[in-house]
Amino acid sequence: MDPLVTRLPLDLEKPSPEDKRADKERVLAALKKAGLSVPADIGPEILRTLPGLLRDNDFSLTATVGYVRDRAKVVDLQGASSYGIAVDIGTTNIAASLFDMANTQKLDVMEYENPQIEIGPDVLTRVHSSMQGEGARLHRLLINGINALIHKLCNAHAIDCSDIHAAAIAGNTIMTHFLLALPVDNISVAPYTPVANRMDFAGPGEIGLDMNRSGVVYIFPNAGSYVGGDIISGILSSGLYLEEEPSFLIDVGTNAEIVLGCREWMIVGAGAAGPALEGGISEIGMRAIQGAIYSVEVNNPPVITSMGKGGFNVTCKVIGNGEPVGICGSGMIELVAELYRSDILNQQGRLNRHSHGVEEKDGARAFVLYESGRKKLAVRESDIDNFLRSKAAMFTSLFVIVKAVGLGFKDIQHIYVSGAFGTGINTDKAIRIGMMPDLERSKFIPAGNSSLKGAEMLLADRGLLQRIDRICDMITYREMNTDGVFMKEFPGALFIPHTNPEILGS
Amino acid sequence: MDPLVTRLPLDLEKPSPEDKRADKERVLAALKKAGLSVPADIGPEILRTLPGLLRDNDFSLTATVGYVRDRAKVVDLQGASSYGIAVDIGTTNIAASLFDMANTQKLDVMEYENPQIEIGPDVLTRVHSSMQGEGARLHRLLINGINALIHKLCNAHAIDCSDIHAAAIAGNTIMTHFLLALPVDNISVAPYTPVANRMDFAGPGEIGLDMNRSGVVYIFPNAGSYVGGDIISGILSSGLYLEEEPSFLIDVGTNAEIVLGCREWMIVGAGAAGPALEGGISEIGMRAIQGAIYSVEVNNPPVITSMGKGGFNVTCKVIGNGEPVGICGSGMIELVAELYRSDILNQQGRLNRHSHGVEEKDGARAFVLYESGRKKLAVRESDIDNFLRSKAAMFTSLFVIVKAVGLGFKDIQHIYVSGAFGTGINTDKAIRIGMMPDLERSKFIPAGNSSLKGAEMLLADRGLLQRIDRICDMITYREMNTDGVFMKEFPGALFIPHTNPEILGS
Repeated sequence: MDPLVTRLPLDLEKPSPEDKRADKERVLAALKKAGLSVPADIGPEILRTLPGLLRDNDFSLTATVGYVRDRAKVVDLQGASSYGIAVDIGTTNIAASLFDMANTQKLDVMEYENPQIEIGPDVLTRVHSSMQGEGARLHRLLINGINALIHKLCNAHAIDCSDIHAAAIAGNTIMTHFLLALPVDNISVAPYTPVANRMDFAGPGEIGLDMNRSGVVYIFPNAGSYVGGDIISGILSSGLYLEEEPSFLIDVGTNAEIVLGCREWMIVGAGAAGPALEGGISEIGMRAIQGAIYSVEVNNPPVITSMGKGGFNVTCKVIGNGEPVGICGSGMIELVAELYRSDILNQQGRLNRHSHGVEEKDGARAFVLYESGRKKLAVRESDIDNFLRSKAAMFTSLFVIVKAVGLGFKDIQHIYVSGAFGTGINTDKAIRIGMMPDLERSKFIPAGNSSLKGAEMLLADRGLLQRIDRICDMITYREMNTDGVFMKEFPGALFIPHTNPEILGS
Repeated sequence: MDPLVTRLPLDLEKPSPEDKRADKERVLAALKKAGLSVPADIGPEILRTLPGLLRDNDFSLTATVGYVRDRAKVVDLQGASSYGIAVDIGTTNIAASLFDMANTQKLDVMEYENPQIEIGPDVLTRVHSSMQGEGARLHRLLINGINALIHKLCNAHAIDCSDIHAAAIAGNTIMTHFLLALPVDNISVAPYTPVANRMDFAGPGEIGLDMNRSGVVYIFPNAGSYVGGDIISGILSSGLYLEEEPSFLIDVGTNAEIVLGCREWMIVGAGAAGPALEGGISEIGMRAIQGAIYSVEVNNPPVITSMGKGGFNVTCKVIGNGEPVGICGSGMIELVAELYRSDILNQQGRLNRHSHGVEEKDGARAFVLYESGRKKLAVRESDIDNFLRSKAAMFTSLFVIVKAVGLGFKDIQHIYVSGAFGTGINTDKAIRIGMMPDLERSKFIPAGNSSLKGAEMLLADRGLLQRIDRICDMITYREMNTDGVFMKEFPGALFIPHTNPEILGS
């Protein structure tokens, strides 16, 4: 594997009356001798320090070389180490991992809230704000966020950020535009055209990243306004593009995208699933962080939290094991599945007002999930409605896409489930409520943060650049929100599990 | 011919629900359709303005495209015109010409004194100063000089300097290092190694040039510490590298370099001829500018300036036709030739103290060239000595180089004479004093500022880049100052025309 930057120790021949080559040409010849097989450049900034470094080190030094397309460039001649960062820019959170490029080992991974949240929690608010002249601010906020993450990682490992020589960054199309300070005006209005899809390589200075100034920054390409670099990166890391049989990649973050394909073709559908799945809609909804209920069971003991109101117990698992403060997407799936199984929730998503735990106030019902002293967490029927719209959108999207290519769920080899939501998903329960197709459980593969993983893989293997290009070329996009079949199929999927349950395994 | 930048009018297909390509990819496709045959890039800075420009202009605009090696990049989408500058950085003067890149026509050429002169008139003083920590200042002074020239040219033609999209710059190795702010410490001490030879392309911002920020800057490569980009450029413009038979290129500026070669081989000798030829040594010596005597005849009328002291007249031609203020290199050649022919100067360079016009003061003789009122221009014997050392160095260099490759002067096809000095040279008189070999006059070809011309040619034809590489690869360098044959042959050449006049046509 050939990483995005490599370190090459060089033992140079010294200048002599018989060998008057310039320092630059001497280094280039030594790089070639050390195995560098592509043409290399050394920019003025590095050249300015070159003669002193060569002579101070008796013509023996280690060059850090970065690769940009089919050329190499010397990015550092001084640093004793070389690091790389992989970044996934989410709408809500930015995740980054730190790599030692000498052995391409991952040293750490951290998250940081996307500071653009101060402008708005969702992408559309930010796009609107950008169109009102706040584009530069949105760019700066995002860069500040990434830089804060870089400094957190560097501080934790006592690293100088000028020793970071490579960055691989993936994000959705809007985030990628904010990253490069590109206008987003046309992405949100028909026919939804981005400024650029292939972002390719950029200079750290062009963006404002706190890393080595001569370093290499690769930005994952978009395949369209609704198919961002995060999806491309996810396809890369999941290996979907290598599958012999059709498989799904489902990425549920603040938005949800679905990829169906294999090594020969790929179709992406997006624009339907809502934020309910990441915990963004219900009043007590939250992301899968400390204090979030991520698992719910309605049964007899073991009991952690007891309702004490009648013939059953509700067992909630909470991230961090402390007092719950809300419920995340996977918790919501489990709650709905369990309430439905226990007949507390009917097929239409109505709560049984005679059931224990169900409250009614001004005609609006809610299920009390947790109560202790003055603390009370209740999920309202309207929250459940919102959730069901998201689950219906998810299922319908999967259904429409699989039918669009003349296949059925039975033909699916693997379902990679990615995103914050995907990490903790209970497949059984997701199937039970009709959110996922009813397939063998072994076909479901949790993919973690597949976008970050793809960026990490690229840091370690620049040979993947060609595969990324191939993935982009293969992708076709299908708009869900305006799809006639989608509109027709959606209502049936609002039910639990479906008005026509047979469709789930069809 | 393919210029370094071209303008391509683009009529783009408009986005539609069926054609959702990103703006960047839309432009790249249109460029390809318009005939662009290499991969192209569009940097973030241009991308930021792209969506607005496309829509404000109904998807019809003209792209200015620059070429860097085997790739193209969009450098401008707004400018209604595109200009280029060719620059020759001389030690004493910077020359630049302005081109309209639309038709590659030369609009103007101007000169500006190299502001580094405030540090020292000669290269060695500046190198020394740079080694004392003044490198950044020398860089800034040079850039200020080039920028002043750019602004002069732009003002004269009412051009915005952001419409300059291409620059081709040639200079000797030291000047090229100052241009890029590279340290020169090792160029002046054995074994004389530059930081870099192949400077290649740079960004205007990396150097500090006042031109379009996304523009293309090409810097001519050096072939060594004593074979600079100015020589490479001169070889290119003279066409020496295309000659079937061996030919000379003689470039006499503040320093003198000699190239002997043809399309199969090339040898460069340098380090010998002195500044006397550019007017730098004699007390009244000056460059070939306003007020310089550039031609001298000792004869009867027509008389412009009369000595009035006896049986002969001295006719001086003065640049600008005003009162003379000094004598330039070509004037000095003519003066020495004429004084020698008139027996006022003998073979050893001694003035005849009995001759009219010769003064003696404290045992030092001088020839009074001009006298009017209180104004008196006299050339001292010591000035003539200095000049004869330069002429001897010039001839000996030519002789040593031609012998080194087993040839004689008779084998020489052409002698291209370049530099400020070369423009006005009187071949007959240069031969008469033994400075140039005694060959058919038709073989001598004035080459003007051959370095500037090469840069101009490259602006208009980037295909020459390959030839420049070939020239660099072909060149071998021969040090003159330490050459044994040179030392042996030099003394005889101090005489007028030579102790062994047969050698002149050998």
